[in-house]
Amino acid sequence: MKNIAVLGSTGSIGTQTLDIVREYNNLIKVTALAAGSNIELLEKQVREFLPSIVCVYNEEKAIQLQKNIKDLSVKVVTGMDGLIECATEQASDTVVTAMVGMIGIRPTMEAIKAGKNIALANKETLVTAGHIIMPLIKEKNVALLPVDSEHSAIFQSLNGEDKKQADKILLTASGGPFRGRKTQELKEIQPKDALNHPNWAMGQKITIDSATMVNKGLEVMEAAWLFDVSLEQIQVVVHPQSVIHSMVEYIDGSIIAQMGVPDMKLPIQYALFYPCRKPLSNSERVDFTKLKQLTFEEPDIETFYGLKLGYEAGRLGGSMPTVYNAANEWVVAEFLRGKLPFLAIPELIGEAMSHHKLIVNPTLNEILNTEQQTYDFVRELSKSI
Amino acid sequence: MKNIAVLGSTGSIGTQTLDIVREYNNLIKVTALAAGSNIELLEKQVREFLPSIVCVYNEEKAIQLQKNIKDLSVKVVTGMDGLIECATEQASDTVVTAMVGMIGIRPTMEAIKAGKNIALANKETLVTAGHIIMPLIKEKNVALLPVDSEHSAIFQSLNGEDKKQADKILLTASGGPFRGRKTQELKEIQPKDALNHPNWAMGQKITIDSATMVNKGLEVMEAAWLFDVSLEQIQVVVHPQSVIHSMVEYIDGSIIAQMGVPDMKLPIQYALFYPCRKPLSNSERVDFTKLKQLTFEEPDIETFYGLKLGYEAGRLGGSMPTVYNAANEWVVAEFLRGKLPFLAIPELIGEAMSHHKLIVNPTLNEILNTEQQTYDFVRELSKSI
Repeated sequence: MKNIAVLGSTGSIGTQTLDIVREYNNLIKVTALAAGSNIELLEKQVREFLPSIVCVYNEEKAIQLQKNIKDLSVKVVTGMDGLIECATEQASDTVVTAMVGMIGIRPTMEAIKAGKNIALANKETLVTAGHIIMPLIKEKNVALLPVDSEHSAIFQSLNGEDKKQADKILLTASGGPFRGRKTQELKEIQPKDALNHPNWAMGQKITIDSATMVNKGLEVMEAAWLFDVSLEQIQVVVHPQSVIHSMVEYIDGSIIAQMGVPDMKLPIQYALFYPCRKPLSNSERVDFTKLKQLTFEEPDIETFYGLKLGYEAGRLGGSMPTVYNAANEWVVAEFLRGKLPFLAIPELIGEAMSHHKLIVNPTLNEILNTEQQTYDFVRELSKSI
Repeated sequence: MKNIAVLGSTGSIGTQTLDIVREYNNLIKVTALAAGSNIELLEKQVREFLPSIVCVYNEEKAIQLQKNIKDLSVKVVTGMDGLIECATEQASDTVVTAMVGMIGIRPTMEAIKAGKNIALANKETLVTAGHIIMPLIKEKNVALLPVDSEHSAIFQSLNGEDKKQADKILLTASGGPFRGRKTQELKEIQPKDALNHPNWAMGQKITIDSATMVNKGLEVMEAAWLFDVSLEQIQVVVHPQSVIHSMVEYIDGSIIAQMGVPDMKLPIQYALFYPCRKPLSNSERVDFTKLKQLTFEEPDIETFYGLKLGYEAGRLGGSMPTVYNAANEWVVAEFLRGKLPFLAIPELIGEAMSHHKLIVNPTLNEILNTEQQTYDFVRELSKSI
């Protein structure tokens, strides 16, 4: 029996994680759940999975939930302390970090320190604090299992191989809904256009990140940390069908690829049961003869220069990836609210990066300060747009 | 330092194996060479690689070679006994079985009995005697490393995985030079047309086998033995670019594929250095953005029904794969000599199979007798074409 804590249980990855737990309830048990504020769904999850502890980040909502589930013997906690309590809950062996944003860093660090394996679905953790997280993972000798489909594919393509013989990572990208368009054609993009992803059903923020290719910029940085390669060893290949989820090229020119239908349950389940595989229910299989073809293109990094900025942030390292991530996070939220245009996303990321004074080896506090300063900077700057 | 015996050293696989030895002569040494009759090339190889023993299958040619290299202290042997002496030569740890035809079975068996690892490039060994070879491999606990590009790809796609979780093997096929044609259009095919393979530079016999898809029939049977799967678990997918060399689909729907440029040195080198990879010199890399697309089709098993017969032979098992292989071998040789038409190949295989009285669990002698009887049968039958 595997015991897991699910942080971010009401989001896209969280609910799909619980779908898998529901199916394999003879193999996995949920010991902790955490969400931001969606206590309606969270209450249902608590009643179904009966964790011993549940966190609602929003304090008011936490109090409300506590009232609503007073018939159950479930401890309700709140805030960062509560999140950390869930992340380190004694009975769990694996923590699924599926919350969105840099809020995920501290609970992830504490979970590692408590000897938990990490099923990593929070991009910001490695992007902004990879230099702190990776040594900790090594020191505590815990497993770091990527849940992102691309990173899971790379992880699977490295199975049984000597990682030192990996020459290059071929990170595939769908290209998003605006693939093929030029800058001029992106000016009038509305949130509803950008939320219409061709292949993947995902959360709103990541769907916008996919449309700007900032998502790929974050993934490149994450892959560099996860697989201990330089940014120059990571090549983004646009592959609109999203069948090849990513590939690894070895020193002999041999390429190992992982493919599958675009279903996030596949990488989630893989991370939960690794190194075992289990049948994936209600999922189609890839049928190559129906598929007919897989196509490939170079990414258009002039139009989607959010990706180029991602490489730049990764190369500079230190606090720069935090600036890249925080600027993007803030502007995307404003775009979704209809307050800023689509093209403001890469523009303000670029501005924030060029105005930032790099901290080479930032502490966690410096990272969090950089995040706040970046929010303030782009907020101020956005007024002039 | 690895010591290898190369059986079939003057053929396509043999010479490419020696190219690799030449490049990595600090890591591999050749202790034995064997060829059929091409003593001009064999002499050059002996002078370059200085094995301790060399076999020329043809006795007359062996005597000639012995005269030509009397300045060297290399033992020259001949015939099946000589071939076995090379296969079991004490200093070698790996035997590369690159001879064409069922002549490869006995030396391979003796090499396994002598505790040698096998780099298997002789299809007939497993196709006709898999039921004898596989238990022997297990008993002697030696490695059986496939050299064929498809089987190497499957082997690589199983790296680090639990083989019991493999659901299906997706064996790719280029479709050969006549892909898309119908039976009527194959009537007038000449050897020179069939020898013009779109992707791979290979020996003559295997190139014809690729044009008829009998090659794929043999590979299906070989894969079933190598990877312990049923024929129903092996699906042939036509993939004209030959970039994906084959794939494995797991129980979760995840597919692991191995890709590369079509260069036989890649799987040969992989088998020689397994589990290490080494840089492959003078070889291009796959460039997905130049490649633009990979396409897939169902095989046309009505036109290329040699493949269908291969599945049938494999399902029946016993001595039937020997009939399939021997009939094909004989008719292809006649086709290459201009004596029989292209379409006689599947036709005579089918006739030979339907006239054969199945031996369920044939001994090696029964296999060799079946081969001879099949030769006699198709020779006789071909007179009526």
